[in-house]
This record gives sequence, C-alpha cells and structure tokens, in this order.
Amino acid sequence: MSEPRTPEPALSVQGDSPTSTRDEDAADGTQHSQRMLNFSDALLSIIATVMILPVTHTEISPEQFDKSIQKLLATRIAVYLMTFLIVTVAWAAHTRLFQVVGKIDDTLALLNLACMMTITFLPYTFSLMMAFPEVPLGIFLFCVCVIAIGAVQALIVVYAFSFPHLLNPQVGCAAPRGLCRQHILRIVLRGPALCFLAAGFSLFFYPVSYVLMATVIFLPYVNKAASWCRDRLLGPQESPAHSMEFFTFNLQEPLSKERVEAFSDGVYAIVATLLILDICEDNVPDAKDVEERFHGSLVAALSVYGPHFLAYFGSFATVGLLWFAHHSLFLHVRKATQSMGLLNTLSLAFVGGLPLAYQQTSAFARQPRDELESVRVSCAIIFFASIFQFAMWTAALLHEAETLQPPARFGGREHAFMFAKLALYPCASLLAFASTCFLSRFSTAIFHLMQIAVPFAFLLLRLLVRLALALLRALRGLARPAQGVEEAPQAPLLPAPC
Amino acid sequence: MSEPRTPEPALSVQGDSPTSTRDEDAADGTQHSQRMLNFSDALLSIIATVMILPVTHTEISPEQFDKSIQKLLATRIAVYLMTFLIVTVAWAAHTRLFQVVGKIDDTLALLNLACMMTITFLPYTFSLMMAFPEVPLGIFLFCVCVIAIGAVQALIVVYAFSFPHLLNPQVGCAAPRGLCRQHILRIVLRGPALCFLAAGFSLFFYPVSYVLMATVIFLPYVNKAASWCRDRLLGPQESPAHSMEFFTFNLQEPLSKERVEAFSDGVYAIVATLLILDICEDNVPDAKDVEERFHGSLVAALSVYGPHFLAYFGSFATVGLLWFAHHSLFLHVRKATQSMGLLNTLSLAFVGGLPLAYQQTSAFARQPRDELESVRVSCAIIFFASIFQFAMWTAALLHEAETLQPPARFGGREHAFMFAKLALYPCASLLAFASTCFLSRFSTAIFHLMQIAVPFAFLLLRLLVRLALALLRALRGLARPAQGVEEAPQAPLLPAPC
Repeated sequence: MSEPRTPEPALSVQGDSPTSTRDEDAADGTQHSQRMLNFSDALLSIIATVMILPVTHTEISPEQFDKSIQKLLATRIAVYLMTFLIVTVAWAAHTRLFQVVGKIDDTLALLNLACMMTITFLPYTFSLMMAFPEVPLGIFLFCVCVIAIGAVQALIVVYAFSFPHLLNPQVGCAAPRGLCRQHILRIVLRGPALCFLAAGFSLFFYPVSYVLMATVIFLPYVNKAASWCRDRLLGPQESPAHSMEFFTFNLQEPLSKERVEAFSDGVYAIVATLLILDICEDNVPDAKDVEERFHGSLVAALSVYGPHFLAYFGSFATVGLLWFAHHSLFLHVRKATQSMGLLNTLSLAFVGGLPLAYQQTSAFARQPRDELESVRVSCAIIFFASIFQFAMWTAALLHEAETLQPPARFGGREHAFMFAKLALYPCASLLAFASTCFLSRFSTAIFHLMQIAVPFAFLLLRLLVRLALALLRALRGLARPAQGVEEAPQAPLLPAPC
Repeated sequence: MSEPRTPEPALSVQGDSPTSTRDEDAADGTQHSQRMLNFSDALLSIIATVMILPVTHTEISPEQFDKSIQKLLATRIAVYLMTFLIVTVAWAAHTRLFQVVGKIDDTLALLNLACMMTITFLPYTFSLMMAFPEVPLGIFLFCVCVIAIGAVQALIVVYAFSFPHLLNPQVGCAAPRGLCRQHILRIVLRGPALCFLAAGFSLFFYPVSYVLMATVIFLPYVNKAASWCRDRLLGPQESPAHSMEFFTFNLQEPLSKERVEAFSDGVYAIVATLLILDICEDNVPDAKDVEERFHGSLVAALSVYGPHFLAYFGSFATVGLLWFAHHSLFLHVRKATQSMGLLNTLSLAFVGGLPLAYQQTSAFARQPRDELESVRVSCAIIFFASIFQFAMWTAALLHEAETLQPPARFGGREHAFMFAKLALYPCASLLAFASTCFLSRFSTAIFHLMQIAVPFAFLLLRLLVRLALALLRALRGLARPAQGVEEAPQAPLLPAPC
C-alpha cells in the first residue's frame, strides 16, 4: 500500500474511499515514496554483499594454500567487510535524507536513480583502491564516486526544499526552513568535502588521502559507538541544539523501522541465493564430460557435486532461520534506534560471510585438517551473526518502553520465547565449535548434525520453552522455602502460563 | 508498518495508539504476513532471473561463432525463459495461497522457508533436464522438486484451515470451510499430481513426461490467454461457480498489487546489479598483469575495460528508467488483475534479458558486423520489455473504472503524461532499430545516443507533453471550422491545461 512513510508508526484501517488521499497527491504530481525506497533498499543490499563473490570464488586447491593465496584471501575479506560498511554508511545517509523528504515527484525519483547508479559503482572503485594501494587513480576514482553521491544528494535536498510540500511534515524543524536546509546540506556535504581534499592529496601525497577517507567512513560509526558508551556510563543527555535533533547522529534518534527491515530482507535474500547462483552456473555437468569420464552415468557425475548441494541446503537453512529470528525480533520492535541499526549492520556483515564459510566447507570436504578449520570458521561466522542479533535485542530491552511492544518486554508473554529464539543459534554454534575441539575427527558430522537439529529446534521451540519454564517453576517452588528472597528480582522474567 | 495485506486497498491514517492491533495479534501468536511475503518475493525474483547468468557468461570469441556455440546459446536462452516462466507460475501460486492465508504464525513462517528452499532448487533441476533431455534423472529430479513444493503448500493449506483465525476474513467463501479447503487443495495439488505421473513415465517412456510437464507449466498461461481472448470477443461472462471465485484462474480476479510491485522491484533490482556483480569480480586488473602488459599504467589497463563500464551504465540507466515507468504506472493502478500480471511477467522476462544484450554490445565492440547484430538485439529486447509495459497499461484501461485511479483514466490529468512515459522507450528503441538499417555504420553511435537521450527525455517529459498538447490544441483550433465533428470522440484524450 502506498501509505506515507513516516518515522511515527501508522495505524492502518480499512476505509471505504481508499483512493481519496492518493488522488490528491496525483493532482499536484507528488507520490508517496515507499516503493522507491523499497527498490533503493533492494539495490543497496545487493551492492553491500556483492564483494563476497571475489572471496568465495578465490581458487584454493588444498595442495598449494601458500602465503600469496592467504594474503589474497585476507585482502578480499577486508575489501568485503569495508565495502559492506561503506555501503551501509551510504544507506544510512539515504535513509536520513528520505526521512526529511517525505514525498517524491518524478524529478526526485530520477535523481534517486542517479544516486543509486553512483553508489553501485562504489564497491568497484574501492576494490581497485585496495588492489593498487599506491596508485593515485584508485583513490581518485573512489573520491570522485563519493563526491558524485554527495552532489546528487545535495541536489535532492535543494530540490525538496524549494517545493516544501515534498518535505515530511512530521519532521519538526523549529528553526526557519532556510536554516534547516543549511544544516542538512552541511551534513550531506561533509563527507564529499573531505573526499575532495583526499582526491587532491592523492595526486602528490596519498597517505593523507587514506586518513581523510577513513574519517569519512568511520566517523559515523565511531561517533555512534562513543556516544552509546557515554550514554551507558553517564545516562542520556539533552541535545544542545534541540531544534536540529532530527538530523543528528544521536543514538536515540528513530531509524525508519521499515527501511531497516527492507535492507535486511535484501541482504538475507541475496545471501540465501548466492550459492544457488553458482550452482546453477557451474554445476550442470557437461554432456561430453559425462560420456567420457562417467561412462554416461549422470548419477555418478552429479554425486561429484554432492558436497555443493549439501553446502547449499545448509547455507539456505541457516540464512533462512537467521532471517526468521530477525523477523520475529522486528515483529516486536516498535521503533528502531541508531544503536540497533549499528548492531544490525554488524550482524548482516557476518551473514554476508556465510556463503564463504559454506563454500570452504564443501571445498575442503576431503582434507580432514582443513575441514576442521573451515567447520570452525563456519561456526564462528554463525556465532557472530547471531550474537549481534541477540545484542540488538539487548539494546532494545535497555529502552524497552520506547522500542518494544509490551509482549516482548520483561515479564511479557513473548519474552521467554524471544530469548530462546535469539539464543538458539549462538548456543548451537558455540556448542558445535567447542565439540570440534574435543572430537576433531567428527567435526563434519557435528556440523551437519547442528544444521539438521536447529530447524527442528525452532519448530519445537514453544514446546521446549514451556517445558523449561515449567521445570524452572517447579524447581523454584521446591526451593522457595530456602531462598525465596534472592530470586524475587528475576520473577518478571517468567511469563504467565499460556 | 506491518499492516494487514488484503486484496482490497487500505487507507492509512495516523493513530494515537498504533500498537493496539499488533498487541492483539501477538497475544495469540499470529503475525501479519507482509514482511514474510516481501522476503519471499525478493527470493523468487532473484531465482527467476538467475538463469540469465549462464547465458551472459557464455564464452563467445568473434572468430569461432560456429554452430555449436549458437546451439549452446540458444539452449541457454530457452532455459532462461522457461525458468522465468516456471518460477513465475510458482510465484503466482504462492501469491494466490497467501491471499487466502491472511496471517501467519511461526510454523507457517518456517513452512514458507521450506517452500522457498525447494523453489530455489527448481532452476537447477530444470537446466539439468535441458542439458540431458534423454536421461530420466533430470526429469525425475524436476518432478520431485515440483511435488515437494506442492506437498509443502498443501501442508500450509491444511495447517491454516485447522486454525481458522489465520485465514483472510476478506476472502469470501460462501461454501462451508471444509469444501473450501478441498477446492484449494485440489488446485494446489493438481500440478504435483501431474508431475507424479510424469516422474513415473520418465522411468520407461520419457516423451509422455514432457507433455505432462508442459501441461503443468503452460496450463495457467494458456488458460489465462484463452479466457482473455474470449472475454474480448464475447464480453465478460458470469462465473458458474460463484462461491469459489476467489481461487480460480479468472482474469478479472484481483492480484495482490503490492506483491506484483515487490516481485517486479526484485527483478529490476537484481537485473540492474547483475553487471556490476561481474564487473566487481572480473574487471579489477591484476597487479602483475598491469606491470607486465601495461608498464605499470593503471589507466591503460582500465581503458581495456572501457566498453564494460559503458555497458554497465547503459544497462543500469535502461533498467532504472524501465523501473521508473513501471513505478509511475503502478502509482495510478488501483487494483491489479491477472491479465496485467501476465503482461507484467512477459515484460520482466525481457528486462531480465537486458544484461545479455549489453554484454554482447560490449563484447563485440570491435567487429562492425557483429556489433550491428548486437545493437539490434539490444533494441529488440528493450522494445519488447517496454511494449509489454505499455500493453499492461492498455489492459488496465480496458477496465479503467476498477483498475485505475481517476487521474490516469481517459480524460484524466495524468493520462497524456502516462501515455508519453510508457511510449518513450518503445518509440526510442524502434527508432534506433530502424536507423541502424539505414545507417548501419553508425549503429553504436546511434545506440549510445539513445541511451543518453532517453533519460533527458524523461526529465523534460512534462514540458514536452505540455508543448505537444498545446500544439495539438492550436492545430485543432485552426482545423475546427473544417472538420470539427470527426475529432469529437478524441476530445477526452486531452487533459485540461495545467
């Protein structure tokens, strides 16, 4: 439905004249921006995860896993992680921008397409920069890309402010509109200005360029992390410039929940299908090959690819279930905050690494020692992807009155289920990792067991949680006469029997 | 916002207690299905377009473009088109299913993930079947896949009907619930039952299997096309089984507009980025290579890839603008019908072919004769992709009272703009195609000119349309004394001056 996208949650009711609001919009040429934002989110999430492909496609034969391959692999992983962060920064800037610009018209839609085109080119310039760290051209192109993005975004701001009906009326800007525009333009153009300097420096002394670019990329994250820590230590502080609070890096600033969901959905969807892309392309055996090597037996030819299929199903199931946990969590989220967005990004960055882990698992399937390594890497990636989801929930619980629906809060009916859902993958992967240390011979078996067991655990989760709660209650009932007082603060954790 | 997805358009208003409806849902463990459906749409659209990759990655050197390569390319294109249709049939079945099942719970979400996993495997089994048309194994695997999908969908139906609060209350089923369930199950299991037969026949006489499978895949399309033609010729007919009309292949049956949008967005997004996936992976020059072949000059090394970048920008701009036209059209669509869905599928299938066209354009950049061929193929693909969009609009206009918002109907303010927007690409590509026939030497120049001119034409569209209308009106004013009567029926086409 093309309802207005606003930072405030909207209630949807069935009306008998559903077209009235849309006709009014159509009359002055404006449109709701929801679908354009969904499309942008899909594009950006694909671009964010694209650099995992060079990593997964690195040719590694178990015989010659030497230094140069290791270095190449490490570089590519670094490129992937950095690209993910860079695109996420661009996505966050885009989200902030379209929280201010509430409606669009044709010109804004076309400007947004231009912005997307420039952003999709970022990963390439970045990997060029990494491949040739000492050649100014890579740095220069990357900076030009950032400047182009900034220029298009500035155009969008200027255009939207000259047609005020495009602005989101719910973004309260107490200051005059001219001041607001200046404030937003300054934030939008801060990064490009630094990159302009960096591009200049790249021509005669490139190390300075790297410092400047690192500032552009990491400043928002460092800012967020630092102010989160400060908030934790000193308690939330009043913003000094109260009138401008809608466009700061304040951690309690609401982040559009729908856009976080759409971006995450895109990442999960592309990651879940990355392996099938490879399988469809590479694993259809050649007719001549089957005739010569397998004496015409297609079954024999396919059984060579067996580990690939297993890896695909494992990868899909894990990504799907991590999506399921994310989906369950966001069902109970009322408002997303910047700190949750940061943790979500970190979780997604590890989710994007899953195809790598699984491909390694299938590639090394015959070398016991390397297999152990790659099973451990897989467990670690799953652990980090899921633990950051858990951290996101913890961050939400810290401000539960604003961020969570009542059932998921402390003492709510769904609290214990939510806890169990989000804790399942961290526990399972940790357990699998630990058991590979003791039973290193059976590491593949353990890993596959985990892959099979976890989906069933999700299916039986409600039953298991109820059993566990009943057990806990029974134990507490027995123990109450002895230690009733100490347990009292934990009581709200337990939901009423359902 | 997690509002209910219903076939009826909903009006969204700002409420002061936005959480009330969601809390009620959370209390009985049900959830709105919107986000799950968005995720499914993203997955399915990626899977639908994945088989274009083997086509674009077919190694063609201009020297040895012989019969075997041509045959391989033709097979792969056929596989792509067929896969697209098959996945779209699966998507349509999924859409129909979740128009009946209005809400989900955890079990349904997990069942849906299982369904997605099976569907993502369809393209692989299909390409296996095409590569080894005479080996029963490929047919067998494909049928097993279809049966597995049917089984999971049947499970979803049975589960949803045993918890009636999960069903969509707006789907009016006058018959008792048991009959409804039977009716739906029969439709869901019809395809899998035929495939079960086909799997059986594949073991001893495989041609019958192909006939059966073709029935499964094409029946819905043939049905739709036939009844559309009948409706056009004889006028719309009353459905005999009126109580069951919500789950038929009736062409006027509403199709969830949001799901059509979400699926289309996914296809456009993945197609727009398919080329950048390749560029990021293949076109970062090797450091050693730059040293040896280009004497350390990165600029020289990159200039080799020049045509690839040009192809990328061209492809992105075309896909982006086709998305823009689609987006503009659906802004004015009130309700999508099955016939519009069919035309949309055809348009999207050609959109998916765009990366192929552009890659060919860049690969043949040095061979004048082949270049001409590939420019023509590109023009043809763009033409078909855009003409089916135009046809979709025409189909909507045939029932404009139900399907379109007032401004886009005949005589509405946006009608002429809409016409111009949708006619721009068909005209431009046709013009480019025609001019390559006369000026075959400059075909690349013409093609690039088109790529550059069309975005500007979109920007200036409103201005151009107004100019054209004013001109037309002036001409008519002059001509009125002579032929005023004949022009009268066309008068509503012209909007009031804005």
